[in-house]
Amino acid sequence: MSLFLRAANGEDTERAPIWMMRQAGRYLPEYRDMKEKWSFWDLCTHPELATEVTLQPLRRYALDAAIVFSDIMTPLSSMGLDIDFRPGPVIANPVRSMADAMALRVPDAEEITPFVHDAIRMLRKELKVPLIGFGGAPLTLATYTVEGKGSKDYALFRQFLWSQPEAAEALLDRITEVTVRYLRLQVAAGAQAVQVFDSWAGIHDEAAYRRFGLPYAQRVFDGLADLNVPRIYIAVASGHLMKAISELHCEVISLDWRSPLTAARAALPGKVLQGNLDPAVLLGTPEVIEREAARVLRDGLGGAHIFNLGHGIMKETPPDHAARLIDFVTQFDRHRAG
Amino acid sequence: MSLFLRAANGEDTERAPIWMMRQAGRYLPEYRDMKEKWSFWDLCTHPELATEVTLQPLRRYALDAAIVFSDIMTPLSSMGLDIDFRPGPVIANPVRSMADAMALRVPDAEEITPFVHDAIRMLRKELKVPLIGFGGAPLTLATYTVEGKGSKDYALFRQFLWSQPEAAEALLDRITEVTVRYLRLQVAAGAQAVQVFDSWAGIHDEAAYRRFGLPYAQRVFDGLADLNVPRIYIAVASGHLMKAISELHCEVISLDWRSPLTAARAALPGKVLQGNLDPAVLLGTPEVIEREAARVLRDGLGGAHIFNLGHGIMKETPPDHAARLIDFVTQFDRHRAG
Repeated sequence: MSLFLRAANGEDTERAPIWMMRQAGRYLPEYRDMKEKWSFWDLCTHPELATEVTLQPLRRYALDAAIVFSDIMTPLSSMGLDIDFRPGPVIANPVRSMADAMALRVPDAEEITPFVHDAIRMLRKELKVPLIGFGGAPLTLATYTVEGKGSKDYALFRQFLWSQPEAAEALLDRITEVTVRYLRLQVAAGAQAVQVFDSWAGIHDEAAYRRFGLPYAQRVFDGLADLNVPRIYIAVASGHLMKAISELHCEVISLDWRSPLTAARAALPGKVLQGNLDPAVLLGTPEVIEREAARVLRDGLGGAHIFNLGHGIMKETPPDHAARLIDFVTQFDRHRAG
Repeated sequence: MSLFLRAANGEDTERAPIWMMRQAGRYLPEYRDMKEKWSFWDLCTHPELATEVTLQPLRRYALDAAIVFSDIMTPLSSMGLDIDFRPGPVIANPVRSMADAMALRVPDAEEITPFVHDAIRMLRKELKVPLIGFGGAPLTLATYTVEGKGSKDYALFRQFLWSQPEAAEALLDRITEVTVRYLRLQVAAGAQAVQVFDSWAGIHDEAAYRRFGLPYAQRVFDGLADLNVPRIYIAVASGHLMKAISELHCEVISLDWRSPLTAARAALPGKVLQGNLDPAVLLGTPEVIEREAARVLRDGLGGAHIFNLGHGIMKETPPDHAARLIDFVTQFDRHRAG
């Protein structure tokens, strides 16, 4: 079994496998070349383009996993939501009531995003490392669905939860069902692990997260349990939710740079840890990159650890800085360091 | 002594004093009327306009404190930074190097923002409740100074800290000195308490906060120690920094809605707690408002507590919902409830 899958399944491996969130993206000149010709949505919806973009970082770097190029918003369009990227996602018909929530379709798996599944099939033929599929957590997808666009504090969504909690639950229910179908089909198409992004969970207090976040994320993970692939969960800026997150039925928890891995190791018994270099470090000097990477690697000792960034790689990152990081991490011997 | 000042000085008062962050603001029709005629910067820089806006919520509501209408960015213009509001602050000449940092002026107190001090003098003649002065914490002001405008994750600033830490320290040093002078003059003009806003502290991990945040906030508080006014600190989304924050030399810690007051009471021994109703609750039904306010009030028992929102009041808040909240809080008898 590959290093990545061994670690994701709980093995305290000899070195930490490494991949980087948004490893296929704007910091790579070959990606920017693609973006000259195609829109972001084109790249997501044409399987041969998504495949090419997914493979770009693998050609440059000795990464231990690939992640299919897509967006957490893609399944929402099949539910009847009119989504555009300019460049952030904008929904023309946001959900604001029980009637809006009930009007959403729950399509069959094959209808949701055939292009993602086609890309996964193509990628599996090309790849020598495991392929990660992904989706948004229901709470986060519901946030965008209600707001209709990005926001600083998602106040409109928080208002929706306080004033129409039953409508919120109906919305979360539908999104959860679609997400389970969507991720199951990614695995059927060849994804060997799945990551669930709960990007906006951290705006809620624990009580709200336990009502509107945790149970739906749990249903997603339970809905994948029989497929026997490692399940990864990431919630950004969610240190205050660690106790609730520790209860999730998943194998791997990905941490952002604010949650030290040492504390997470204690707070998340039995979980594999993923993370958590501050992506801004990659804009520093080579000495800073190696010093901070070494710190993250040491903090990750004492259990299974997948090295990653604490958030998506920044578009300003020089590609040779990413190379330096990957070299350093892949040469770090965890058994000798421990 | 007033209820607010008794609580801010550590007294477990019979009821919780209440004020609301951004209580003078866009949710009030009389404020929006002012904004028809004047820009935000006009309102800040003309003492008679700042006074009028500050007094507006006091005419409607039985609030226990006023806070001078201003912006945390105001002192930066006197340092040589060219700031415009459109409507968020934009700096034409952001700091990006040691040379930029060293070029900043450290003006005498009287030069910094005479209009704020004039407004404070005018307000003290009108007010029957205590007046709070305020400023930004050095880390947060430095964030804006480097970024030049708002940002989602302040990646440029995080990069600056990683790649030019000495320049960051020179910048923080200058901003700290100006902030001490600025806040001391607010107190000299009549402010009876000061609140220091560290709005963006929460983007950093504890190590970065302990290097670039805590020591400078500490210098600000130490620089006010002889003035004998309660010092309030607020850092948003900073649950992961609670240990470091507990070390601050200030009387009051204001919590956002994600940090339960019960846990904060244990984590912040000897501190007065301020907060922390989710401002989105004020958009819910009267039953939701009273239920959640009661929960916050009960969580605040067992020590001094100043009721506040966990963040600024939202512009969509109906003014009668704010009235309902204030009525409820001012009728809650803490000694009987305890």
